[in-house]
Amino acid sequence: MLVDGRPYRSIWSAADREGVEIIDQTLLPFVFRVVRLATLADAVHAIRDMQVRGAPLIGATAAYGIWLGLRDGLTEAHLTAMAAELVACRPTAVNLRWAVERMLAHLVPLPEGERRAAALAEAELICTEDVRTNEAIGQHGLKLIEEIWHKKGKQGTVNLLTHCNAGWLATVDWGTALAPVYAAAAKGIPMHVWVDETRPRNQGASLTAWELGKAGIAHQLIVDNAGGHLMQHGMVDLCIVGSDRTTASGDVCNKIGTYLKALAAQANKVPFYVALPGSTVDWQLHNGVADIPIEERSENEVLFMQGRDEQGTVRRVAIAPTQTRALNPAFDVTPAHLVSGLITERGLCAASQEGLRQLYPEQVHD
Amino acid sequence: MLVDGRPYRSIWSAADREGVEIIDQTLLPFVFRVVRLATLADAVHAIRDMQVRGAPLIGATAAYGIWLGLRDGLTEAHLTAMAAELVACRPTAVNLRWAVERMLAHLVPLPEGERRAAALAEAELICTEDVRTNEAIGQHGLKLIEEIWHKKGKQGTVNLLTHCNAGWLATVDWGTALAPVYAAAAKGIPMHVWVDETRPRNQGASLTAWELGKAGIAHQLIVDNAGGHLMQHGMVDLCIVGSDRTTASGDVCNKIGTYLKALAAQANKVPFYVALPGSTVDWQLHNGVADIPIEERSENEVLFMQGRDEQGTVRRVAIAPTQTRALNPAFDVTPAHLVSGLITERGLCAASQEGLRQLYPEQVHD
Repeated sequence: MLVDGRPYRSIWSAADREGVEIIDQTLLPFVFRVVRLATLADAVHAIRDMQVRGAPLIGATAAYGIWLGLRDGLTEAHLTAMAAELVACRPTAVNLRWAVERMLAHLVPLPEGERRAAALAEAELICTEDVRTNEAIGQHGLKLIEEIWHKKGKQGTVNLLTHCNAGWLATVDWGTALAPVYAAAAKGIPMHVWVDETRPRNQGASLTAWELGKAGIAHQLIVDNAGGHLMQHGMVDLCIVGSDRTTASGDVCNKIGTYLKALAAQANKVPFYVALPGSTVDWQLHNGVADIPIEERSENEVLFMQGRDEQGTVRRVAIAPTQTRALNPAFDVTPAHLVSGLITERGLCAASQEGLRQLYPEQVHD
Repeated sequence: MLVDGRPYRSIWSAADREGVEIIDQTLLPFVFRVVRLATLADAVHAIRDMQVRGAPLIGATAAYGIWLGLRDGLTEAHLTAMAAELVACRPTAVNLRWAVERMLAHLVPLPEGERRAAALAEAELICTEDVRTNEAIGQHGLKLIEEIWHKKGKQGTVNLLTHCNAGWLATVDWGTALAPVYAAAAKGIPMHVWVDETRPRNQGASLTAWELGKAGIAHQLIVDNAGGHLMQHGMVDLCIVGSDRTTASGDVCNKIGTYLKALAAQANKVPFYVALPGSTVDWQLHNGVADIPIEERSENEVLFMQGRDEQGTVRRVAIAPTQTRALNPAFDVTPAHLVSGLITERGLCAASQEGLRQLYPEQVHD
């Protein structure tokens, strides 16, 4: 997507083919800085410290990370060790494991001498496929927005609520939850997006608001507490969020707070859709609340806040008393019965085993 | 309650009986500063800029404000004008109107020469009654906590979730939602409080965490997004929140985000109680969502955040891109059917017209 008129992806191999470049998302929206990853350690750091985040982008970064790490060794043992290190970075996102396993399945059978070139090619392919996937999600989700736009008699705006950032910054390009928004805007449908701030890391305030602003799409920031009230008062036509991991039964694990919005959507009869690539489905899992491990992150994410002061300096400030402790679960699980439907690269389906089975018949099911 | 070993109320008349003193709550938890209000304008400013907040404390401040304003005139016209100015400060809290109307009803029949002394006496009485009311709320709520503590076989802790600050800082003393917590702790029941941060003004992070810390009660700060997840996983035994306005049918208007927690509590069978003095009931209203005006506050409360930097300076930082706009509704309404019960100064009751009618038979009902 465009940043000040120049097209960007969120990750790309450097022109010299010796490194990978990313946008450091910990600095947005205040500083737009491209960072070069030269080693596996750089990739691990980028994933763990959330310079890159979003399930698809994490997967792409891990794939490139294996390519970078092959500089230090080409053996299968080295590949396995790299895979373990990468998967441990973020325990919840299934794309990470998916991308790493795909790389290993592709590389292990090859002679060692071919592995570096093949790793780069496979990482690039993962990126290309991600862009194509998200474009397809956008087109399928567009139908939902068009339907609402027609129901509203093509008056006013379509008011969509989203949580966290599942825009192009969370993927290689286009995004998942925001892909339908970009597709609808391109079709001339006037969109208005309610952007959940998304505490504690504020991905809504810092990434989604930034993305939508750069794309010229109308939006307003709201605190995470406000969505229920807006839905009660008919101010939300549709919710679309992303997914970090989806069970075979349609339970959705996404950024903490998603579940609360899904409850409010159901109580107020607001359609609640989840946009996701098939790669986020964990076909082995059937009970999201019981079985998906929820990453607990540092309490400092809750106790401190980053922002720009009057002089333009980005500062970290404490927002609680010094002695106060915090708990910081990073994700929650929205049970399938609260989800109106899934928007995948293969089309729309019910958030259920039957729905997913129809779209992904090649997956092994119990 | 105690602050560093010294007992405080949140508001009191100064020793010279020429002014009122409050704790400036906009500076907490970083600075504990007592501020003197000398005029009606000072009281209006304190209410509007939230140096004082919380329905009961707003009412007490307004009552003292009328006393202070009588220095500039003693006529009925002046009283009426003061009342109008005070009520306009915060449109949602019904205690404000209640306290102002009570003052006028008491003062208007008196000769002008007696009005100043009577105003002080009545404001002091409102405060004394508030303290007594909240102590009673604490004792009635204590029963619920004792019941849970017995059900748990007196093992571990009673885990209570609260939203915003309905502690002693929101009242003259004791608090509403936190009064049962203080009562239970005094009885030796090990309490653990999940403190919702409560964006955008962070009353949980800055006031509730501070209060509980000063009282030595175990607590952890969580983002507003986390409560649903904790309830899904059995980590919350009971929710208690306050109320800024309650309809005669038991709908509860409280800080934005309360509704989302009530939805999660119902979905996970966690008891959800609202602690309130009878004075927050608006006996004329029967449909909270339709009829309670919801105050919209400045978007800057969403776009900026206050905190303490490494050097100890309290700073305001921007957390969103410069061009981003925000919407900031300050309250939401939790329909009665989501409320397990009300904790009032007269006892527990169902959140319904029947329940409230039994406890407050003297109120005129349609």
